[in-house]
Amino acid sequence: MTNDGSIPAGMMPVALDAMGGDFGPSETVPAAIKAASTGSVAIALVGDPAQLQAELDKHDGAARLPIQVVPSEGVVTEDEHPALAFRSKPKASVFVAAGVVKAGKAKAFVSMGSTGASIAAATVVFGTMDGVERGALGGPIVGFSPNMVIIDLGTNMDSRPQQLLDFAALGGLMSRLVYRSDNPRVALLSVGAEEGKGNRLVRETTELLKTSSLNFIGNVEANDLPFGKAEVVICDGFVGNVILKLTEALGDAVVSEIKSALGDSPEGQGLARTIFEKMNTLKAFGGGPILGVNGVAVVGHGRARASSIASAISTAKHVVEIGFVEASAKELAKVRAEVEI
Amino acid sequence: MTNDGSIPAGMMPVALDAMGGDFGPSETVPAAIKAASTGSVAIALVGDPAQLQAELDKHDGAARLPIQVVPSEGVVTEDEHPALAFRSKPKASVFVAAGVVKAGKAKAFVSMGSTGASIAAATVVFGTMDGVERGALGGPIVGFSPNMVIIDLGTNMDSRPQQLLDFAALGGLMSRLVYRSDNPRVALLSVGAEEGKGNRLVRETTELLKTSSLNFIGNVEANDLPFGKAEVVICDGFVGNVILKLTEALGDAVVSEIKSALGDSPEGQGLARTIFEKMNTLKAFGGGPILGVNGVAVVGHGRARASSIASAISTAKHVVEIGFVEASAKELAKVRAEVEI
Repeated sequence: MTNDGSIPAGMMPVALDAMGGDFGPSETVPAAIKAASTGSVAIALVGDPAQLQAELDKHDGAARLPIQVVPSEGVVTEDEHPALAFRSKPKASVFVAAGVVKAGKAKAFVSMGSTGASIAAATVVFGTMDGVERGALGGPIVGFSPNMVIIDLGTNMDSRPQQLLDFAALGGLMSRLVYRSDNPRVALLSVGAEEGKGNRLVRETTELLKTSSLNFIGNVEANDLPFGKAEVVICDGFVGNVILKLTEALGDAVVSEIKSALGDSPEGQGLARTIFEKMNTLKAFGGGPILGVNGVAVVGHGRARASSIASAISTAKHVVEIGFVEASAKELAKVRAEVEI
Repeated sequence: MTNDGSIPAGMMPVALDAMGGDFGPSETVPAAIKAASTGSVAIALVGDPAQLQAELDKHDGAARLPIQVVPSEGVVTEDEHPALAFRSKPKASVFVAAGVVKAGKAKAFVSMGSTGASIAAATVVFGTMDGVERGALGGPIVGFSPNMVIIDLGTNMDSRPQQLLDFAALGGLMSRLVYRSDNPRVALLSVGAEEGKGNRLVRETTELLKTSSLNFIGNVEANDLPFGKAEVVICDGFVGNVILKLTEALGDAVVSEIKSALGDSPEGQGLARTIFEKMNTLKAFGGGPILGVNGVAVVGHGRARASSIASAISTAKHVVEIGFVEASAKELAKVRAEVEI
């Protein structure tokens, strides 16, 4: 949108939580400029007007781009309880960004977190799809398997089998529409490959998945994750969060080893970059959509820099264009109807 | 023990499941020879006598070492159900090895798996400590934090808070006695650092740990695991198994990247070796004791080679010498008494 709030023809309006992430406006504003410069996106830049304007003023030509500042008050940090934050500071940037979408002034919002607040914003402001308690996060997080969608990554704890069935439906759709897999293999993460191995949740979910039309291939183990054994891997959010954070942290530790062994040599730098991208996929490449909510919200990594945030904005545009939300509601209904619960 | 079954003075008798692991006698027999050559261990080599003798005959001087072949029939593989295997083939090598200990002819048994069969053997033949359902496995598996004991690694699914309290007591003891930590920090693995973050199991276990005398420091997250934030990290066996297998597999994937980037250069080989040792700790360095059972059993990695198996044998000797089993029973009783359950 331009300064007067109108949206130029052919541009998709996207709201950006400019105060979110670990770095706030110093990274989100350059990201907005980068995205708006493509000519295909208009940005509603949500945050503290003085801070945002000061940051915009550092960039020549920013005033001519389709970027409009939308004022908000405060920001929700990672250590705050998201639901309490929504009550105590409803004008925080992420909630205002969701409201911009709800009001029809943008097609999607993008935030680098807090993740919990982004999910709370999408869950409360957009509402969840029928039978879904809370938005879920899924995506490729082990870069050695760049097309493997792992879901849930930490939003739903103590999941029930029916929730894992929903994750399978949504993950399968994401795999087909976003990652272009033809007939994605859907697997349950467990501690052994054989049916029956695992915990109660895995065994009960197996019974549901077997009767669905999903291309269910049974269990995979954590050692299968870097080796592309399935396109969709289903797990409880506690476990998915462990996979996400452990992969990233091991990536950081390995990169340190590489740097201390090889110093600043070109080989060392190249290898460090490769490992970083494969083990910090979210940080390197942006974010993913919140699943199961009635609107498009893309949440990225707190430590994302401007170029990753710009990638998250184009992901949001793509998710809108493919009609992901409407397709999700249909897919959930279809898969649930196939299964006796 | 010598060929006639007597144990030379000053040597500790250890039973080795010579048929276990992915490679069987071709690795276990050289490991037995290596261990017996130290002069401090006598080996009861349990397995198929013809196969074992053929392997022993390849090594000059093996006949003069304190190694006695103990016949068994069959082996339990990783894909068999351990409890069913115990009923259908009670003379399999791992069960006979446990029986050698039970009969007082060895002080400990060592197996490279199947892990499930080793735990079944220790659980059924030795019996579990009061209030313990099944043996547990714990140890340092993220080599970037070489003194961090993570427990449980995959033997107990759907754990209850009281089981996690037991893991904390046993892990703390292991940290003090085996890894020489003075006042080990005990942490719960969760999805956020703040109290209250996580699943029901974490929240309920927090209440128990807070009233114990253990040095409980609250939650750690998976991204803390490579950075030594605690000496003991407690989790359900499903989660621990994911950590173990994901770390190993990412290690394999990283080593492949290093080799393809750096080829056979000395830098590449050195770096690959470092990463392998830090991410495949169990495979590189042997095994750990099964916790909560009334006897010493050390289980190692299926893919362990002779030198790692020999390390597992000396670990078994050490665990016997420090009186770990007796100390474990006392520690469990002490910590449980401190907590209102």
